[in-house]
Parts: sequence; C-alpha cells; structure tokens
Amino acid sequence: MAGSRLWFSLLLAAAFAGLATTLWPWPQYIQTSDCHYTIFPHNFQFKYDVRSAAQSGCSVLDEAFQRYRDLLFGSEPWHRPAPTGEQHTLETHSLVVHVVTPGCDQLPSLESLENYTLTINNEQCFLQSETVWGALRGLETFSQLVWRSPEGTDVMAYNKFNVFHWHLVDDPSFPYESFTFPELAREGSYNPATHIYTTQDVKEVIEYARLRGIRVLAEFDTPGHTLSWGRGVPGLLTPCYSGSQPSGTFGPVNPILNSTYEFMNTFFLEVSSVFPDFYLHLGGDEVNFACWKSNPDVQAFMKKKGFGNDFKQLESFYIQTLLDIVSDYGKGYVVWQEVFDNKVKVRPNTIIQVWREEAPVSYLKELALITQAGFRALLSAPWYLNRISYGPDWEDFYMVDPLSFEGSPQQKALVIGGEACMWGEYVDSTNLVPRLWPRAGAVAERLWSSKAVTDPDFAFKRLAHFRCELLRRGVQAQPVSVGYCEQEFEQT
Amino acid sequence: MAGSRLWFSLLLAAAFAGLATTLWPWPQYIQTSDCHYTIFPHNFQFKYDVRSAAQSGCSVLDEAFQRYRDLLFGSEPWHRPAPTGEQHTLETHSLVVHVVTPGCDQLPSLESLENYTLTINNEQCFLQSETVWGALRGLETFSQLVWRSPEGTDVMAYNKFNVFHWHLVDDPSFPYESFTFPELAREGSYNPATHIYTTQDVKEVIEYARLRGIRVLAEFDTPGHTLSWGRGVPGLLTPCYSGSQPSGTFGPVNPILNSTYEFMNTFFLEVSSVFPDFYLHLGGDEVNFACWKSNPDVQAFMKKKGFGNDFKQLESFYIQTLLDIVSDYGKGYVVWQEVFDNKVKVRPNTIIQVWREEAPVSYLKELALITQAGFRALLSAPWYLNRISYGPDWEDFYMVDPLSFEGSPQQKALVIGGEACMWGEYVDSTNLVPRLWPRAGAVAERLWSSKAVTDPDFAFKRLAHFRCELLRRGVQAQPVSVGYCEQEFEQT
Repeated sequence: MAGSRLWFSLLLAAAFAGLATTLWPWPQYIQTSDCHYTIFPHNFQFKYDVRSAAQSGCSVLDEAFQRYRDLLFGSEPWHRPAPTGEQHTLETHSLVVHVVTPGCDQLPSLESLENYTLTINNEQCFLQSETVWGALRGLETFSQLVWRSPEGTDVMAYNKFNVFHWHLVDDPSFPYESFTFPELAREGSYNPATHIYTTQDVKEVIEYARLRGIRVLAEFDTPGHTLSWGRGVPGLLTPCYSGSQPSGTFGPVNPILNSTYEFMNTFFLEVSSVFPDFYLHLGGDEVNFACWKSNPDVQAFMKKKGFGNDFKQLESFYIQTLLDIVSDYGKGYVVWQEVFDNKVKVRPNTIIQVWREEAPVSYLKELALITQAGFRALLSAPWYLNRISYGPDWEDFYMVDPLSFEGSPQQKALVIGGEACMWGEYVDSTNLVPRLWPRAGAVAERLWSSKAVTDPDFAFKRLAHFRCELLRRGVQAQPVSVGYCEQEFEQT
Repeated sequence: MAGSRLWFSLLLAAAFAGLATTLWPWPQYIQTSDCHYTIFPHNFQFKYDVRSAAQSGCSVLDEAFQRYRDLLFGSEPWHRPAPTGEQHTLETHSLVVHVVTPGCDQLPSLESLENYTLTINNEQCFLQSETVWGALRGLETFSQLVWRSPEGTDVMAYNKFNVFHWHLVDDPSFPYESFTFPELAREGSYNPATHIYTTQDVKEVIEYARLRGIRVLAEFDTPGHTLSWGRGVPGLLTPCYSGSQPSGTFGPVNPILNSTYEFMNTFFLEVSSVFPDFYLHLGGDEVNFACWKSNPDVQAFMKKKGFGNDFKQLESFYIQTLLDIVSDYGKGYVVWQEVFDNKVKVRPNTIIQVWREEAPVSYLKELALITQAGFRALLSAPWYLNRISYGPDWEDFYMVDPLSFEGSPQQKALVIGGEACMWGEYVDSTNLVPRLWPRAGAVAERLWSSKAVTDPDFAFKRLAHFRCELLRRGVQAQPVSVGYCEQEFEQT
C-alpha cells in the first residue's frame, strides 16, 4: 500500500481532552484549544453543506457517513475521556461537509487531491475539502477526535493509506481468474476451487477500496517470477538446458518468440479493462539470466540481435516490447528498480519503485539517480513489514527520512510516495493482521505527516493509543509494548 | 510449557497412506507397513479393555474419547488421503485402551509415566499404557494417523507438551486474585474489573490442563520483578535512595524486614493450596542490586550480618528464607539459574531453570555446572519463542541438542526436560497463537522424539502438514513457508 505526502490542515479551535494522544497520523497543521464539546448520538448528523458540490446520493460520502456513524455511536455504550477544561455542547449537532469539486462515482487516482480543513468551534463544525477523497480523510480525523466504537476491516483508511498495490501472482501460484485465459488459474493456482480471485472478487475489492478513497494498483510481474504462468500456457516460459539437452525446468518468460508477445498483448488487454486505475505495475524485478544463458535458441537470438553476451539488453528488449503494448492500451506503468538499473528505455512518465535497501546502491542513492534521470520514484525499500524482528521495530520504519538524499527540490518533488509491503512467504491469513497493524501505521505517519514530526516518544504514546482504538474497532493489531487496552482482542 | 524426554513406542503393523508426513512429534520407535485401514464413524468406538485399570467413569479418558471422537468424525465431511497399497476395513471397529495402573482423578506430576504402545494390525487396534497420561499421548498419535477434523484450543496436548509454566505476575501487573491479600490484584493489576485471574479462572485452567495430561507450574517471581506487588502491600518493596533521601521509587522485595517474611509466609500458604502441583516456581532472576545498595537501612543490615559489600549474600539470605517457608508447606521448587549462579544454598531436590543463552556462560556449560553439582536442570534458553525473527526460525529451535554438553550419563539424566517460552512484552491475544504455533512444535519434537530425529527436510514436510492439521482443528497457526492448506484459516 502506498501513501503520498499531501498537504492538509486541521483548524481545530476545539478538541476533546487528551487530543494529543488520539491522532494518527499527525496532521500537517493543527491548532488546538482546551475547549471540548459533547455530541449526542440521538441528534448528531453528518450533513452536506448546501453549497457543496457533493450532495445526498454521493455514494462515497453517503456510505462513509454511515460507516463513521456506526463507528462513533455503534452498538456499545459510548464513553469518552474524562473532560478537562471548558465543556460545551456542540450547538450545531452536525458536522457539515463541503466538497468543492463535483465527482462521486469516479475512482481515486494518482492526481486526486486529498487535503481537507476541519474546523470545530462554538460557531461551526465544518469539514471543507477539494474532493470527496479529502472529505474521507477528514472524516477519519473527526472520528479519531471523537473517539469511540467497533467495526470491520478498512484499516488502510484508518491510517489514510490511499493505494492498495496488489501483487496478484508469483512463482508458486497464479490465483487471478482470467476470462481470456482461464487455464492460467485452473492450472497455475494452488487450488482452482478454493484458492483463486474470481472476476467478482476483483470487482468487489476495487469498489470496497474506492468507497474508502483507495486506488487498486494491480501487478502482473514479468518476465521473472512467472513459474506459475507456465503451467497454463505451455511455451510461455524459457526451457532451461543442461548441456545440450533441455533439463525439464523452466526460467523466465521466453523473450524470443512472437507467441509470447501475442499472449501478453491479449492478456494485458484484459488486465487493462479489469483494473481501471491509470497505472499498472509490470514488475521486472529479479530476472535470473542463467536459464536464458543455457538455452541455445536464446543464444542464437542474442547473436542475431547483436546483444553480444549482455542479457540486460535481452531483458530490455522484452520489457520495452511489453511497455509499448501497455502504453497502447492507454495505461501508465510502474516497474521495479531493476528496469531502471538495467538501463531499459522507458517512457518519461514511468514510475520506478525502489525496493532494494543496499544493492547495487543504497535506496537513498537510488532515489537520487532515478530522480536525476527525471523519473518519478516510489519508495518501499525500508518498509518491508513482512520482515518482522523482535521488539519495537516500528521505530525503524518511523525514523526513515525518504527525502534525505542529495538532490534538488525538483528531484525531491519526483518522489511521489512510499509503500509499506507485506510479502507472503511466511505470512497468510493467520498472521497477516497482527503483523501489519500497527506497524504499518508507522509508515503511514511518515508519509502523511510533516517531515518535522519525528519525536519517537510522542509517536509511541499516540501509536499505543491508536492501537487500542484499532482493537476497539475489531482489528487484531499487535501490542506496541508492555501495557493493556481497555478493550482487548478476543478470539471469536 | 515443558516437555520431557520420555520413552514411548508405536508398534504399527498398519498405517494410512502418507503416514510419514502425518506424525508430529515423531515417536521414539515406530514400525510400519504399507497396509491401511478404513474406519467408519457410525460404528467406530473407543473402548476400555476389560482388564484395564481405567474403566468407564474415568474422567480423563471419558472426556478424551469424546474430544477425539469429535476431532475425528466432527461436523465436516470426512476425507482421507487417496489410499496406496492394500486396503482393509478394521475388523474390530474400535480402539481398545488398556491402562495398567489405576488412577483417573489425580493430577499429572513430574513422575507421571507417559509412554504407550499403539498397535494396529489385522487382529487388533490396541493402545496400551502404564497410566492414563500415556493413554492421552497415544490417543493423540492415533488421531494423527487417522487424520481429520476441526476443534478448539488444547494445542499443547496436540504437541504432547505436558507442563504449563504459568508466569502469573511481573513488574507491570499483578493479575492473580489472592483471597488472603485481595489488595494485591485490586491495586496491582492493570484493571481489577477486566484484567485479573479469579480463583475460578485458576481452577478451570488447572482442570482443563489435567484432562489433557498437563501440569500447571505456577511462578511467583521474587525478590525482583515485583513492582506490581508494592502497590497493594506498602512496605514490601525496598525504598530506593537518591543520596540521603528516598527517591520515591522502589526496588526488589525488602529482604531486611520481618514483615516481608510474614507476608511471604501467608501468601505462599495460599499459593501452595491453590496450585496442587508438587512444584512451585519461585523465580529469583535478574535481581538488581542498585536499589539495595542505595538504601542506608539495607547497608546497616549488611554490616550487622557480616555480608560486607556482597549483595549476593543478601539475595541468598532472602531466597533461603523463602525456600524454607515453601519447603515447610511440603512443596518442591524450581528457580531461575541466577539462584545457582549466585551460590544460594538450596535443597538437593531443587530444579534449576537455565534461561540465559550466553552469560555468564553458555547454556550448555551452565547445564554441565548445574548437573555436576547434582541438581536437576530444566532448559529454556534456546527456546524463547517470543523472540521472533523473519523466515524459518523454527529450524534454530529444532536443531538444538540439549544434551550435547560435556558430562557423565548421570549428569545428562539430571536434565529433566525443556521449555518453550512465550514472554509477553510484545505479545498478547492478538498475536499469541500464530507466534506460538507451529514454532513451539519444533521444541516439542526435540523434547519428545529420539535424539536421532534431526533431519530438517523430514521435519519440514511433517511440520508443514501438521500446521495444516492445526488449521483444520481451528488453531491460527502461522505458515512454515510458501504454500497452502486445503482448509485455510478464516477470520471469524
């Protein structure tokens, strides 16, 4: 998942007691008083401002109002921290939402503005935003200020993450059910009856995300990491050789056959329509050249093309052909850093994802090189949440400064965001949630809050509090340290 | 939890297909054929042999028969692996259980024999054991051979762990509800309304464990790790000094006051009756001398006793007095290794628990020293399951050889077992189960199976299979590696 640094502010002439501990991630700008207000479930409402571009019937906000109403005034009795300072009853009994730009039925995009201004004082309780997506972020902030209640599973939105990068297929399994090539999942998934994503599943994921202001970025990684593709599409992968004989094993996608590109053409036509986001992730990481090297047909092709012994040129040949295909479908693309490292010629609007911590250079140096070349960069290297270690390892994620490389302001502006990754080698439904939360929250604040918000003690207090709030919302978030929550997680 | 190396055997003239992958931990002795047998839910029975010392009405086995019946033939349709080799229907339609020694209502103890012999062939399906506890272990083995179905939470028994070491209280919280000193939990727990163990809870834990052949070893750790005791018992802890003034903070239990020993006398009288196991764990680890050193009254006491500047002698004084108290109540005791390292004089039957990996010496050297001095040792140092690291870290737990220290056979016989620990600094109900299972299983097999069972590939296959079986039984056990299970864990 990815977040990007976007400006938003919180004009808050009033706040409930204990405010400083209740917000995660921390707003870019916040101004508080010691006043606090009481709101009552029976007469509190979320309302559209009469001049708002979004009005009743706007799916994104209508559903969000319902979700936050349930969260705030859900089935359980409603408590709040013991008040300090002056106490007021909110005169207006409602949060009025004003959206400037029309648009409720689209998907969020890379360009979506998510800034908002939330104002709570004696005169008004008002949320202003450019777009419905900004209004969603502001509603989450409002819910964290009010503080209460249980619910479900949209934890990314609680942390204001705004992109779900879905690495759908890899060597061991091809669970994506393609309607053009049903044999891919039938032969390539762990179990086509139980372990696949159907067309309907994909649709539901995209709509579920959209209603929470989250984009879905689908990745179909080639030419490496494709072992599972080969079972459904004979001839797609390169046969590896042992001496002069095929060894019976297979390597990356075979880049020398027309049939490969015909397949990719058809497959990505489908993918381009199924996943509506402008961007597709095309992979390109960790291509092992050994199998290509062993294959005499590949060797002959290299000779014919004049690539000499440089298999990076063969990789470039493959990737460039693929990128042209996808561009023709009107899509932009994200690729892993190897594509840049191996000097594949890509379009200027390509986004390069930096995932390697140290090799061939440190990720900061890599960001400098990519942005110097004028490309946009997306950073995930320091945020591999699957790589758990004992103790408060969230601090390591938190203390990263993604813009601390040497480069011009123009270069830094090309770093469009960061991503917290959870790879599946040792993670599945049994340990995903506690491993993800609240550790991913550390990344969320780094990407969402001001660069100046770096005090680990201030973060610790709020993160521990936020983790208890996640438990209260029904999320199996693991502990930050010794301590307890009023409402603990209960295995059901 | 702890397991001890006990001899048991499995005479199995018959087995279902795929047997080699289905058993965890591996039996000490096993003999198999390629025959397999079919059993049918509608007419299969667990039966007491007519000559068995245990008969219908034996709580431990009656309940175990019911549990395993549910596990084997539970609500879901009953599948088994596709058969290979000869197929037979089990003529007898029952597993006949013969227990040699009477006794169904006791608790398991350190001396309990848990060996058993399970024989399955054309003539009989027979489980023979010295005690009901051995019969429980054999029933689990039988259930792993038959293979099927969902259920609850007695995962220790699935792995044949036989002691639950319950570290009940520590610095942050005192959740044990004492009826002699109710103020301990009232003042010392996180929250006396929600975060305590009531008398009834403790009783239920002990009976639940007993029915699964598991002892409950309670630990009340003193004189260190006692910060939470001080809130309910003013005067119990040592006031620390800053220069000539009390600093307002507190250190370990105050060892110079008669009132301390009066309190311990009364408190451990209660504990001795609440926890029926012969052994109590009295702690004794990580005593920080700084506070004692700072306190002028303690200094005066040291002088009077002639301890000079040697605070280990003061620690010895405290511990010896405490051990005498507990011995008077007819209890044996387990202590952490510092008690031995600091040369506290203890009774010859004391069990020393080795928890430090390297300091002051390696745990193997420590085992050599302890057993050379004639004491029994319990090893947990290499098995801190809370200390998770990324990837297949179960292999590290698995490859430990606890008896590989230099010492005589008599010394090795004094190593009574091992313990897999899960400490709570970063673990609670949100991440306990996936962190515990199946990683603790690696320790179970090391402690239960033959020293010769060390092949990690053989173990990997069975552990991955066993983990899927745990999912099927409803246990949120995390993945061993890339792959899948027919029945995955579903968040409910």
